[in-house]
Amino acid sequence: MASSTPSSSATSSNAGADPNTANLRPTTYDTWCGVAHGCTKKPVQFLLEVVDILLNYVRKTFDRSTKVLDFHHPHQLLEGMEGFNLELSDQPESLEQILVDCRDTLKYGVRTGHPRFFNQLSTGLDIIGLAGEWLTSTANTNMFTYEIAPVFVLMEQITLKKMREIVGWSNKDGDGIFSPGGAISNMYSIMAARYKYFPEVKTKGMAAVPNLVLFTSEHSHYSIKKAGAALGFGTDNVILIKCNERGKIIPADLEAKILEAKQKGHVPLYVNATAGTTVYGAFDPIQEIADICEKYNLWLHVDAAWGGGLLMSRKHRHKLSGIERASSVTWNPHKMMGVLLQCSAILVKEKGILQGCNQMCAGYLFQPDKQYDVSYDTGDKAIQCGRHVDIFKFWLMWKAKGTVGFENQINKCLELAEYLYAKIKNREEFEMVFNGEPEHTNVCFWFIPQSLRSMPDSPERRERLHKVAPKIKALMMESGTTMVGYQPQGDKANFFRMVISNPAATQSDIDFLIEEIERLGQDL
Amino acid sequence: MASSTPSSSATSSNAGADPNTANLRPTTYDTWCGVAHGCTKKPVQFLLEVVDILLNYVRKTFDRSTKVLDFHHPHQLLEGMEGFNLELSDQPESLEQILVDCRDTLKYGVRTGHPRFFNQLSTGLDIIGLAGEWLTSTANTNMFTYEIAPVFVLMEQITLKKMREIVGWSNKDGDGIFSPGGAISNMYSIMAARYKYFPEVKTKGMAAVPNLVLFTSEHSHYSIKKAGAALGFGTDNVILIKCNERGKIIPADLEAKILEAKQKGHVPLYVNATAGTTVYGAFDPIQEIADICEKYNLWLHVDAAWGGGLLMSRKHRHKLSGIERASSVTWNPHKMMGVLLQCSAILVKEKGILQGCNQMCAGYLFQPDKQYDVSYDTGDKAIQCGRHVDIFKFWLMWKAKGTVGFENQINKCLELAEYLYAKIKNREEFEMVFNGEPEHTNVCFWFIPQSLRSMPDSPERRERLHKVAPKIKALMMESGTTMVGYQPQGDKANFFRMVISNPAATQSDIDFLIEEIERLGQDL
Repeated sequence: MASSTPSSSATSSNAGADPNTANLRPTTYDTWCGVAHGCTKKPVQFLLEVVDILLNYVRKTFDRSTKVLDFHHPHQLLEGMEGFNLELSDQPESLEQILVDCRDTLKYGVRTGHPRFFNQLSTGLDIIGLAGEWLTSTANTNMFTYEIAPVFVLMEQITLKKMREIVGWSNKDGDGIFSPGGAISNMYSIMAARYKYFPEVKTKGMAAVPNLVLFTSEHSHYSIKKAGAALGFGTDNVILIKCNERGKIIPADLEAKILEAKQKGHVPLYVNATAGTTVYGAFDPIQEIADICEKYNLWLHVDAAWGGGLLMSRKHRHKLSGIERASSVTWNPHKMMGVLLQCSAILVKEKGILQGCNQMCAGYLFQPDKQYDVSYDTGDKAIQCGRHVDIFKFWLMWKAKGTVGFENQINKCLELAEYLYAKIKNREEFEMVFNGEPEHTNVCFWFIPQSLRSMPDSPERRERLHKVAPKIKALMMESGTTMVGYQPQGDKANFFRMVISNPAATQSDIDFLIEEIERLGQDL
Repeated sequence: MASSTPSSSATSSNAGADPNTANLRPTTYDTWCGVAHGCTKKPVQFLLEVVDILLNYVRKTFDRSTKVLDFHHPHQLLEGMEGFNLELSDQPESLEQILVDCRDTLKYGVRTGHPRFFNQLSTGLDIIGLAGEWLTSTANTNMFTYEIAPVFVLMEQITLKKMREIVGWSNKDGDGIFSPGGAISNMYSIMAARYKYFPEVKTKGMAAVPNLVLFTSEHSHYSIKKAGAALGFGTDNVILIKCNERGKIIPADLEAKILEAKQKGHVPLYVNATAGTTVYGAFDPIQEIADICEKYNLWLHVDAAWGGGLLMSRKHRHKLSGIERASSVTWNPHKMMGVLLQCSAILVKEKGILQGCNQMCAGYLFQPDKQYDVSYDTGDKAIQCGRHVDIFKFWLMWKAKGTVGFENQINKCLELAEYLYAKIKNREEFEMVFNGEPEHTNVCFWFIPQSLRSMPDSPERRERLHKVAPKIKALMMESGTTMVGYQPQGDKANFFRMVISNPAATQSDIDFLIEEIERLGQDL
């Protein structure tokens, strides 16, 4: 397919094209000099060929006879698969080879949109979202000023307002921004809290204030600790609160640890409540946590990166009851709402804090003497300078589905999780990690191989059980038929964490996953 | 175009489609339920219609008879243009309307790829890069683990290695990561420096270490100060070093300020040298700064977000001489190399620091007992959790152009800047902000209206001159023919900052810009 016989073309850096497919197509990219003079015939032809490859990929993604992945080890891909060489070189490749590279990149990748891919919280391939992202790339602009992203800046403002309304804040003029992922959104929340209570940190640093302490649960996302380290609090000052057997914060332990910190002369600043933990899908009791935050005058953040989508569902939003009492909320539409990666919002109840916290007034970008209302420029409230347009795909999906469309899609995923739970809870081949109906789409379970079924609990059994999920996962990736994650948690041996966020998944896909685990685990 | 007459379709949430265009097309998105069962005929048809809109946009972007923008004030767009309503609603819109929304989003946006768009450091619309980004969206995966992004993770590793080689580091096993923009890359550099010298900050926070001080020039990017605020140093501990008339750091002032900080009992930690400042395009004297950093044992970071591209040019890379002595480098391919936003790398000379600094070992994501070599998982060295795939478009462009292609493209942009400088330096209508040939593609100048040409320097003249650029820029945006930025700098009145990073720009576009400034400024 990819011929690279040297041609006699004008520039020495050209590789030749396959004569059978050459017609409109130039041999290499640098012969597209017509672009500078407005000729786009060849580039458009090239893009159409790429689109053909992509649409073929989209078709196959939804075709269950296609594998989820074709696994290769790093050394295999690095050594170079047939015709696919990852190394970069001084001279250009032929455009024929570039098309082959595109095909191979998809071939050796993972189909995260496949209805049987359950490995991550972000799954699916929403077609409207995909169209939105293609448009975003084509527009190739930057969110920092209204000047060069007028439509996107307004879409972001309108969408953030809508999200704040759905959270339930009654004030009109809150704030927020789309950030590159939930970890950064959570980082923003801590910065906002610090600025609200100790604005002098901005100029004088953490050395100028008392020993500030952050609280989050032992089941919460590691990004709170990571932000604690980055922002200069130190991980020792990120106190982990105990959870009950369902992975929910125990409010009494939170209060005890706040008092303990105060006794040490430390200053409690911030509590993170999680709405939808990563592994168990647990919802912390926000009302009780909010009571404690009010009592001790602490900033309440709700990390609803994973659970935020449930706010769109009249049936499930009660699980986040009390979220309207938070001062800030992380909510990732790229998870439960099926928006393409990346799409994460940090919402802040009070306007002005993000701006105050991050503003540096760079004259070259945020000129106060522009001809339009510069309050629409967003760059001075971000920790980024340039900022990718994450809003459009989400806005377009919302237009195309309506709020009710998201509601239906989320309800459907939760029904599938209930189906899975009902299917395996009483079977001897499976053991649930915690009891009771799933609150989110997380269903956590062990597969118990024949050899362990009659064995009583013991360190040996736990040790053997710990190896089961990794073994099955390895076989699963080799066979490429489906993908699901596993991990240990606390002193619990490795277990499978099933999550469903792809509206293309059906009961038959759940059945398939369970059968596949049984098939792969039968001889363990 | 967008009919929304209610139809008698099965679901109550459907809006009707124009009967003339209905054929294959469903009326709303939720009638695509076939996707779940593997039928993708209608979604593929929809994507093809979007592609048609996008290719039309691409064609027009390179057509100089098309305007760069069709400017509207925020209130105008918010009130709703004909058929284009930004508000979100509960019910879905028809797919016809979704296509109209796509067209209108592009119509009211800014063509950053237009050969006459000079407003930002990131310009252009590279076709291979665009194809790469379309593929990236379609693959919709996440950089945190090899497991779900095997090809992209390896491409990143290979590209980072290549970039480190080009920087000139002789050690084999450095490190780096692609981050969401130069500001975050610069933030990483400060975190790395802090971890190298004071690893205890990770656990104990900034209160546990002496008063640490960062140094950067008064012309450097504001992200250094912003990171200083965020990471808990405080902006008072980000010391600004004086620059000469070309915007380059004065090494003697750096050394004096280091000594001053030490005298106060503070601890100098980190120096940022800029290779290509935002406004002047100045290159700090890295060799001299490196000497000072060695003398005082400080971390040297080079912010080459803008200037890094020149490393690809044998003719221009001497401007960054000494960069190989840095401990870390920021380099944004999305600027001078014309890669689509976002694409920014933080390169670190020593392996292990990013990992040590950011590692939290989340068990659910980075299982040590996976079947592949988990050292390829990248998530634990990032401050993000999920991370967008920024590498593919860049890798694909490199394949298609080769190193020599980037070199040619960058040399060409620099030649255009020289052309512009030569064109206006001796004309009475223009006054240069600093003397001498441009080192980068930044050309900074005042347009002097007739009324000010014979007026000697005075506060009144400066005050009037200060208003000239904003007025011309406002007229320019209203007419939509071209775009260039302006800003003040220090005590200098507003001036134009011309930058060229779009390889589609030609001398005729430079001529056009100058004529347009003269035309719009003739009556001022």
